Amino acid sequence: MFQDLDRLLREAELDALLVLGGTTDNAAMRYFVPRGRLSGGLAVKKPGQPPSLWVSSMEREEAGQSGWPVHTWSEAGFYHFLQETRDRNQAWVRTFETIFQKEGLTTGRVAVVGRVEFGSYWSLFHRLQERLPGLTLLGEEGLKILLEARATKSPEEVERIRALGQATVEVVGRVWEWLGTARTRDGLLVDAQGEVLTIGRVKRQIRFWMLEQGADLPYGLIFAQGRDAGIPHSMGEEAAPLRAGQPIVFDIFPREANDGYFFDFTRTWSPGYASSEAEALYAQVLEAHHLALETLRAGQPAHEAYDRVCDYFEARGHPTLRTEPGTQQGFVHSLGHGLGLDIHEAPTLRQGNTQPLQPGHVVTVEPGLYYPEQGMGFRVEDTVWMDESGRPRVLVEFPYDFVLPLRG
Amino acid sequence: MFQDLDRLLREAELDALLVLGGTTDNAAMRYFVPRGRLSGGLAVKKPGQPPSLWVSSMEREEAGQSGWPVHTWSEAGFYHFLQETRDRNQAWVRTFETIFQKEGLTTGRVAVVGRVEFGSYWSLFHRLQERLPGLTLLGEEGLKILLEARATKSPEEVERIRALGQATVEVVGRVWEWLGTARTRDGLLVDAQGEVLTIGRVKRQIRFWMLEQGADLPYGLIFAQGRDAGIPHSMGEEAAPLRAGQPIVFDIFPREANDGYFFDFTRTWSPGYASSEAEALYAQVLEAHHLALETLRAGQPAHEAYDRVCDYFEARGHPTLRTEPGTQQGFVHSLGHGLGLDIHEAPTLRQGNTQPLQPGHVVTVEPGLYYPEQGMGFRVEDTVWMDESGRPRVLVEFPYDFVLPLRG
Repeated sequence: MFQDLDRLLREAELDALLVLGGTTDNAAMRYFVPRGRLSGGLAVKKPGQPPSLWVSSMEREEAGQSGWPVHTWSEAGFYHFLQETRDRNQAWVRTFETIFQKEGLTTGRVAVVGRVEFGSYWSLFHRLQERLPGLTLLGEEGLKILLEARATKSPEEVERIRALGQATVEVVGRVWEWLGTARTRDGLLVDAQGEVLTIGRVKRQIRFWMLEQGADLPYGLIFAQGRDAGIPHSMGEEAAPLRAGQPIVFDIFPREANDGYFFDFTRTWSPGYASSEAEALYAQVLEAHHLALETLRAGQPAHEAYDRVCDYFEARGHPTLRTEPGTQQGFVHSLGHGLGLDIHEAPTLRQGNTQPLQPGHVVTVEPGLYYPEQGMGFRVEDTVWMDESGRPRVLVEFPYDFVLPLRG
Repeated sequence: MFQDLDRLLREAELDALLVLGGTTDNAAMRYFVPRGRLSGGLAVKKPGQPPSLWVSSMEREEAGQSGWPVHTWSEAGFYHFLQETRDRNQAWVRTFETIFQKEGLTTGRVAVVGRVEFGSYWSLFHRLQERLPGLTLLGEEGLKILLEARATKSPEEVERIRALGQATVEVVGRVWEWLGTARTRDGLLVDAQGEVLTIGRVKRQIRFWMLEQGADLPYGLIFAQGRDAGIPHSMGEEAAPLRAGQPIVFDIFPREANDGYFFDFTRTWSPGYASSEAEALYAQVLEAHHLALETLRAGQPAHEAYDRVCDYFEARGHPTLRTEPGTQQGFVHSLGHGLGLDIHEAPTLRQGNTQPLQPGHVVTVEPGLYYPEQGMGFRVEDTVWMDESGRPRVLVEFPYDFVLPLRG
C-alpha cells in the first residue's frame, strides 16, 4: 500500500523515488496523482515526507487535486534557462538540476521510474549525472519497491476493482444472452434478421455496453474463435463470422475511466454445441482453475499455484513452459498476474517467482490450453483478492458454462 | 516519411535505431509495426536495411503483419538465460546482448527510443553497456531523427488523418445541433424534458457518437466552460451545468481505433448569447487564427507564425509567453504542434523553434486567449496539412460561429 513506501525506501537505502511523466497510461504517476490529468510531471518521494509534484504551470490545478505540494517548472527556472541556452534539452537538464538542488538531492541514491519516452530521459539523466557527480541514479531498485507497494491493495482499491468487475460481468451476461438469441445457417451464427454475426459486430456491441458502464477498454478486448483462440494474444479477426461448435475465448480487461484501476476476466464459450474433444479440454482447464483457487494462500511463494497447475496439465500430456520453454502449444503462459493501475503488475504467478503472496494482493487466475493447429484454445480467468485471512476470494462471480445454447 | 530514416541515420552517423516497447500508446513502435498489437518488443533499424523485430513467441504473428523479419526472445536465448541465471533482469540483459551480437551491433553508435518503463531500461542498458564496452548508447539523437521522419506525412497518412477529421466534425456538428435544441431556465441549459444539461452528459453523448464513428478518445476530451475554459488543460467539470452566455471551449483529439493517427480540433461556443467583451476577445482569436493560416509557408521557421500571432495579441494588450514567460493569462501556450501517431509531435509552432516547415507536415493551428479570473477562455483550432506547393490547407472545414443559438 502507498504508506509502505516510506519503509520500503528506507529498506532499499534510497534517498528518493522519482516518478516521471503524466497520468495517462503511466501507473507510476497515477499512483501519486490519483485524480486530475497531467500530461507530464515529476513526483519526488523521500522517506517520511509527503511527495512533492513538479508540473507545468498550466497543470498546477490538476496536480493540486492530489493534495500534495505542487511546484512548477517555471519556479525551477525553465523559462530562464531556455532564454539563456536557447536549447530545450539543455534547459530541461538545468531545470532538473535546480529541482534536485531544491529537493536536497545533489548526492545520494535516487531511483527513477515512470512510463516515458526513453530516448529523452536517457540523455537528460546522463547529462544531469555529469553535473551532479555525487548522485547515484538507479532504475530497477525504485521500480521494485513501487511495484511492491502497489501490489497490496487498500480496501478502497479492492472495492473499485470489484465495482468495475460487477459492471463488466453485467455486460458479459448481456453478451451471453444476446448470442443465445442467434440461430445457425450453414454453420454460421445469424441474428433474428438473418444477418451473420461477425466478431467485429460483437466487439462493437461490447464496446458500447462498456461505455454505458463508464469503463474504458484501453487495450481493446479479445473475442477470438477457432485458430485465433489458440493464440493467447490474438485479438480476433473483425471480419470473421462466428461459427457454431468452435470455442470462443472472450477476454475483457477494462479500466475505470480517467486512467483508474483494471479488472480482468475471461470465459470460453462454444456456441450451440461442442465436440467431445473440446468438452474434455475445457473440463481440464476448468479443473485446473479450481485447483489453482484451492492452492492459493498468503505466505506461499507466487510460483506454487503455477507449478500445481503445470503438474496437472503435464500429467494429462500437455506441454507447459516448464517442459518446453517457449512452447506455443499446451499451457503457454503464466497462471496469472497482479492487476491494479496496470493490467499486469506484481505479483506474477509464474515459474521461479519466489515472492510470497500476501493479504491485499489482487491477482488473476487464468489457466488455459492452446492448440492453434487444431483450431482450438481455452482459458478461464477470474480476478481474485487475497483477503485478510490470506485466502483467495473471487472478486466477482460468473457461471463457467461452456456450451452456449442457441435459442434462435 | 518512413523512407527518410535511411538518410537520417546516415547523416546522424548512427549504426542503428532501436525502438523499445509495444504498440499501445507508443508511437515509435507503431510507426514500425502499423498493424497488429504488440504488448512489447524491440525493432532494430539499420541504414539501408529493413527493420527486424524481436518479440515474444506469443506475438510472432501479430508482429508478422508488419511484413518485416520477425525473431523471438526465445531465439535470442531468453529461456536459456532464465534457467542459467534464475533472475529475469539478468536474463533480459543476456538476451539483449545476444540480439546485439546477432544484429552486429557490439560496437558503434546506437540510439534507443520508445515509450517504456524508464526504471527497467535504465538499468538494463547500463548493464548491457558494461558487457559491450565498445557500444555507444544514445537517446535524443535517435528521437530527433525519428521525429523528423514522422513529421512529414505520406499521402496515405494525410488521408487517414483527414478521414478521422471528417468523422470528428460530423460529431461536432451533431453536438452543435443538439445543444441548439436546448432552452434556458435560470440561466442554465435544459433539454426538451426540462432536464439540466451537464458537461458530463454532453461528454458522454460525444463519446457514444465518436465510438459509432469507430474512433477512440484516449486522452478524453475538453468541454469546459467559464473559469475552466480559461485554463487550457482543464477538461471541464462533469457535474457542472451548462450556462447560457458563457464561452465553452470544445477541444476534441480522437485517435483512430487500434493506436492509429490523431486528429485535433477546437471550437469555442457561447450558448444563447455572448457578452460584448467575450465577442471582442473571440473575434481577436479568430483573426489571429486567420493571420496564422496566412503566414504559414514551407521553408519558413516554425516559430514565425507563432511570433506573428504574439505580435498581434501583444499589440492588443494581451500577455504572451514572450512577454511574460510562464504567464497564465493571455496567450499562454504555443501556436500549434505536429500531430500523427502522437497527439503532440514535431514540428511545434513555438518561440525559438527554427526548424523549417516542410511540405507534408501536418500541424495544428490553435491560437487562444485565457482569462480564468474573468471566467473566460477562447481557442480556435484546425488541423492543417502543408501541401506539395508548401501552402497550408485546413484538412477539414467547419464553421467558426461563436454564438450558438438556442431554439428550444
